[in-house]
Amino acid sequence: MQPINPSPRILLGPGPSSVPPSVLRAMAAPMVGYLDPQLMRFLSEIQAMLRQVFQTENEWTFPLSGTGTAGMEAALVNFIEPGDDVLVLVNGYFGARLAEIAARHRAQVETLEHPWGQVFTPQEVETALERKSYKLLALVHMETSTGTLQPQVAEIASAAHRHGALVVLDTVASLGGTPVAVDAWDVDIVYSGSQKCLSAPPGLAPITVSERARRALESRQTPVDVWYLDLPLIARYWGEAHAYHHTPPISSLYGLHESLRLIAEEGLEARFARHRANAERLWEGLEALGMDFFVPRECRSPTLSTPLVPAGVDESAVRRRLLEEYSLEIAGGFGPLAGKIWRIGLMGYSSSRANVDLLLTALKQTGDGGR
Amino acid sequence: MQPINPSPRILLGPGPSSVPPSVLRAMAAPMVGYLDPQLMRFLSEIQAMLRQVFQTENEWTFPLSGTGTAGMEAALVNFIEPGDDVLVLVNGYFGARLAEIAARHRAQVETLEHPWGQVFTPQEVETALERKSYKLLALVHMETSTGTLQPQVAEIASAAHRHGALVVLDTVASLGGTPVAVDAWDVDIVYSGSQKCLSAPPGLAPITVSERARRALESRQTPVDVWYLDLPLIARYWGEAHAYHHTPPISSLYGLHESLRLIAEEGLEARFARHRANAERLWEGLEALGMDFFVPRECRSPTLSTPLVPAGVDESAVRRRLLEEYSLEIAGGFGPLAGKIWRIGLMGYSSSRANVDLLLTALKQTGDGGR
Repeated sequence: MQPINPSPRILLGPGPSSVPPSVLRAMAAPMVGYLDPQLMRFLSEIQAMLRQVFQTENEWTFPLSGTGTAGMEAALVNFIEPGDDVLVLVNGYFGARLAEIAARHRAQVETLEHPWGQVFTPQEVETALERKSYKLLALVHMETSTGTLQPQVAEIASAAHRHGALVVLDTVASLGGTPVAVDAWDVDIVYSGSQKCLSAPPGLAPITVSERARRALESRQTPVDVWYLDLPLIARYWGEAHAYHHTPPISSLYGLHESLRLIAEEGLEARFARHRANAERLWEGLEALGMDFFVPRECRSPTLSTPLVPAGVDESAVRRRLLEEYSLEIAGGFGPLAGKIWRIGLMGYSSSRANVDLLLTALKQTGDGGR
Repeated sequence: MQPINPSPRILLGPGPSSVPPSVLRAMAAPMVGYLDPQLMRFLSEIQAMLRQVFQTENEWTFPLSGTGTAGMEAALVNFIEPGDDVLVLVNGYFGARLAEIAARHRAQVETLEHPWGQVFTPQEVETALERKSYKLLALVHMETSTGTLQPQVAEIASAAHRHGALVVLDTVASLGGTPVAVDAWDVDIVYSGSQKCLSAPPGLAPITVSERARRALESRQTPVDVWYLDLPLIARYWGEAHAYHHTPPISSLYGLHESLRLIAEEGLEARFARHRANAERLWEGLEALGMDFFVPRECRSPTLSTPLVPAGVDESAVRRRLLEEYSLEIAGGFGPLAGKIWRIGLMGYSSSRANVDLLLTALKQTGDGGR
């Protein structure tokens, strides 16, 4: 068996994004024990930097030892008891996954649905909340299946709180690439993934939990369904007690530390402006190639763009040529959007003018070949 | 904020163990997408190498995207439906954790208990199985809280099968350091952790599932409680379909690939002999220092030794001096064994003659200082 030696790729799909060299180097730092004083310092620095990225002062702010999906399941399972009423906003695959996971944990799940690619208004959410009382409202900020960015999250959260519901927000594909203001928006349970706009390797799910949500947790009548994702137990390791729950993925935490440090160095506002500028450059370039977009400009995410595949083009052949001839990865659509859109991520380290220009050039070269 | 730059440690605790340089380097390889053809090849190589380490031909053999504890929870939750009768053998902390997690998933849990440090005979397990019918029997091969290695696992598994129970075996701290023969022992669901005798970084939980257990899964009446740990969904990504479930921790998989490659290069028998020889050298050395052991020699694990702390010695002061003066990590006991034992791991890359001799020398130097 040969050692691995993967060729570098330019990752412009829905994640993972390309990882900066210093993050890769950080992962190769020497292993230490899970209670090593050196690690304890890194953990508290990671928490401080995550609070800045989430724009929150929530004490419970730490990465979970799993991928973004583990974050999603933790965000639901800790706050659902059997029979609890949960409302999920569904306008894409990940909204549907929220509903499915909530149901696995025995919630009474109802959905407010829109066709894939459309977003929700605070008014329609409020109307749904008036009809019935829910313990929890869950929604996706940036829907990776479609490229929509849900606006007015603060207004939706405010409606939910007026009606007594906690708010779960999925920011897997937005955190670190476009504003996520946890405290200003007053959202209660917010999770993300390490491998998208944070540009760390996949395997960690940052999560933050409001005081309101912690009080709800304290009044649970039944234990949390999933031991591995039990937030109060996990918080005891990340807090002063450093009590053993499981051995965290230490090398991945090294990588996350460095990726958060790079974000702090760049500054959140500069980072958001970079994502926005590169996305607009991509949109203009794709329009110049004659392409239309699945999502109207006003609710399009700067982190993931979804142009429509031009009529007559074999989209998978184009992707194959991009990968083989340019080492460039973009993704296709799936479910109802299979064959109809491309999904082009400009996330974290992958969001650069050079990548945009190379992709546009490569699409020009390979676009015809796919016909 | 400064970049991380941890001082190297010699990790002789219960895990993580020290990680070989080539494994650390592998983690720093360029990121690729979760469906990249290059990654697909690494995944199938990881599966092939894991089958060798588990000594099995089980098709379902892959690492889960979480730590050993995620492996434990997956091994239980996929095979338990509400009300199922489960028998857990408990002779230490991790046996108790198995029982707790099984109960979280609404099993009717009964335990067969021994004082910490004692092992089970096939006869007493058979007697328990005769009294009542269980769907599942769960036990720990190497109990990291005490240092016992459960003998006669094959005989216990055979008794379980005679009485219609599936067998879950925890090999978190044994796999890769002492024989684990999944097919020969005919155990059904076996999981481990990447960071102990495999000497990869923490964050992955190798698991293997027998045909018998897969048939049981197919006849479930209810969905698996935990979406993130749903084995049939995960197996679709690791199988031919490569269907998306979640983005796996790709850098950690690079590390695991390299650690498994090193194991294949060394050979399993040579690796077990190395662990055995270094453990015996440690035991002799500790005896020469006048120490006794918590576990009798015949059920002592070569991967983790648990000498009794000599009377009058402040065990935590000794550990602190080892860490500060020698960068050497060993662990104390916990629960009923707090202050009474040390836990000294010689796992994977950490199991070397040089480490044993340095630890013995350092203990001689620091032992008095702790009084």
